[in-house]
Amino acid sequence: MEQNFSYEQLVHFTRKVFSLMGCPDDHAILASNVLLAADARGIDSHGVARLSGYVRLWEAGRINPVPDIKIIHQTPSTATVDGDKGLGLVVAPFAMKVAIEKAALVGSGWVSVKNSNHFGIAGQHAMMALEQDMIGMAMTNASPLVAPTFATERMLGTNPIAVAIPADRQPPFVADFATTTAANGKLEILQRKEHEAPIGWVQDKDGHCSTDPNILKQGGALLPLGGDRDHGSHKGYCLGAIVDIFSAVLSGANYGPWAPPFVSFLPLPPNPVGEGLGHFFGAMRVDGFRPANEFKSHMDQWIERFRNTEAVDGKKVLIPGDPEREMEAIRMKEGIPLLAPVVKDLKELASKFKIDF
Amino acid sequence: MEQNFSYEQLVHFTRKVFSLMGCPDDHAILASNVLLAADARGIDSHGVARLSGYVRLWEAGRINPVPDIKIIHQTPSTATVDGDKGLGLVVAPFAMKVAIEKAALVGSGWVSVKNSNHFGIAGQHAMMALEQDMIGMAMTNASPLVAPTFATERMLGTNPIAVAIPADRQPPFVADFATTTAANGKLEILQRKEHEAPIGWVQDKDGHCSTDPNILKQGGALLPLGGDRDHGSHKGYCLGAIVDIFSAVLSGANYGPWAPPFVSFLPLPPNPVGEGLGHFFGAMRVDGFRPANEFKSHMDQWIERFRNTEAVDGKKVLIPGDPEREMEAIRMKEGIPLLAPVVKDLKELASKFKIDF
Repeated sequence: MEQNFSYEQLVHFTRKVFSLMGCPDDHAILASNVLLAADARGIDSHGVARLSGYVRLWEAGRINPVPDIKIIHQTPSTATVDGDKGLGLVVAPFAMKVAIEKAALVGSGWVSVKNSNHFGIAGQHAMMALEQDMIGMAMTNASPLVAPTFATERMLGTNPIAVAIPADRQPPFVADFATTTAANGKLEILQRKEHEAPIGWVQDKDGHCSTDPNILKQGGALLPLGGDRDHGSHKGYCLGAIVDIFSAVLSGANYGPWAPPFVSFLPLPPNPVGEGLGHFFGAMRVDGFRPANEFKSHMDQWIERFRNTEAVDGKKVLIPGDPEREMEAIRMKEGIPLLAPVVKDLKELASKFKIDF
Repeated sequence: MEQNFSYEQLVHFTRKVFSLMGCPDDHAILASNVLLAADARGIDSHGVARLSGYVRLWEAGRINPVPDIKIIHQTPSTATVDGDKGLGLVVAPFAMKVAIEKAALVGSGWVSVKNSNHFGIAGQHAMMALEQDMIGMAMTNASPLVAPTFATERMLGTNPIAVAIPADRQPPFVADFATTTAANGKLEILQRKEHEAPIGWVQDKDGHCSTDPNILKQGGALLPLGGDRDHGSHKGYCLGAIVDIFSAVLSGANYGPWAPPFVSFLPLPPNPVGEGLGHFFGAMRVDGFRPANEFKSHMDQWIERFRNTEAVDGKKVLIPGDPEREMEAIRMKEGIPLLAPVVKDLKELASKFKIDF
């Protein structure tokens, strides 16, 4: 059961909710644009479906609607930002802007962030660099749901990495992926459909292979990209670990199993090793390496050559970012389909804040 | 059939060979140290086993023993280096040094390299940053052997990524991995043992799943980390693509299917889009983000917590770099075992250059 809503309707509603949480106008506008980018691009797990989650974190005192976000340490090309418990949806664009400003001055900028929380889709922040002819990068740590290779304990989040690279005639290359075999959102889809999960997505509490999409509720874990040792799960574990260290050990946020959960009903892990969740952003001027027009014309050639790769019957080789861009074109025209539980959730929010939905 | 050789004996022999190729003394010393680091750390596919391959590339005029390696474009935190067809084993440390010097001045340094060739193990270059209390990164593109998701064509190399992160009391975190399910070296081991490859490592020329470790000789391909679409191979494809673009599109090297093969008997791809092979290096001062002692003490805590993760029976959770460091300790004491075909190869080199082995 799905119901269609226009982008405008949803972004307007989301903005109102953030305003009523006490966010200043510019924050409410920015946060709602970032959150809705997920719905527009087809990453339904990271959009308005999470709005009530942010509200509950605010009610639990874990989100500060009027944060004093600031640089607390820096060099010409690096900085650490304290998010002051602000919405990750606002803290992340602030930090990415710092990275871009540094890149404009010295060629590249790298910003680690502490004291933040969930920042929406990583790709949206990385893409901020594109209009400056820069390569953008964004990553974040997250609630521990993933067991490293050979582990029975959940130690890492799905820790996504996004890289956005500008081209000229061609649309940009935008990679944005969790460092696990499958993102948690995909597992939730299987739960709703009552389908089994493919082997290599999850394990049970003892570390045995499982195909039960509900296994995380029984102490199971998501698996790093690769799935098992024979298929390179140690590489997915490395990637998730690098994201964790860049986002949280560099900045002074909580890392590994100390990362705070997104859901407000779970308690914060005891004896925190830092403040809040961490992110990491980067921006590199392409003309820091070669003239921008040369770079972008070779990116066109790269994209065209890869798009024309010989493919198996009935399939084609995609360029990272293609599916999300196509989805965005459709949804901005035809609307965004929301599942019944999400609609119910938004109606409850409307009633809580005494506004229309 | 294996025979043991001391590190000193092999490094001395390798140095002589590079000298007799015409390399200046400092280049021959550096190149042999980098090459032997692979053997010492247990990455047998990237060490002296490849020495005759470098010699054949030199004989084919594809390696310049007296390169004029230089910076051709730069900003305070970025640079592009032209390797002048030098040994990648020499070009890479030059470029990594540029990254480290820039990081010392402005917090981070990022260097893209063109006109190079195979650079040994990525981890060795990334580790150069550690003694400066910097995080080091190294990546390279390589001969096209990998089919992107849904492709039947080989478009990318095994394109490794290495990240080295310093700690205090604990040894450093050193991740170094191909962006494929399995490195080509692992396939070669199965070929020698006449074992089947696990599902998800390779496909045949039509893109069908295969377990034949010899399938690459029949038009097959290695698969990106993840193996197939259901298990996240599009993420491995993204990673390999990012390495390709950072290494070769940023620098002006050959990218994708134009990357030159390591083996001299294969012709160079026609209509090159750049010069030689490409690499990418990065260095970030940890005190560009927070005081170094704070960072390193939290890295100790990260490493200790992950090393003590609850594990499946009989296994333990490893820290990236643990196995290679343990191997190095053993091999520096007990010697480096070489397979009979490698020993034969080195004896032939000795006879070609009229030196002892």
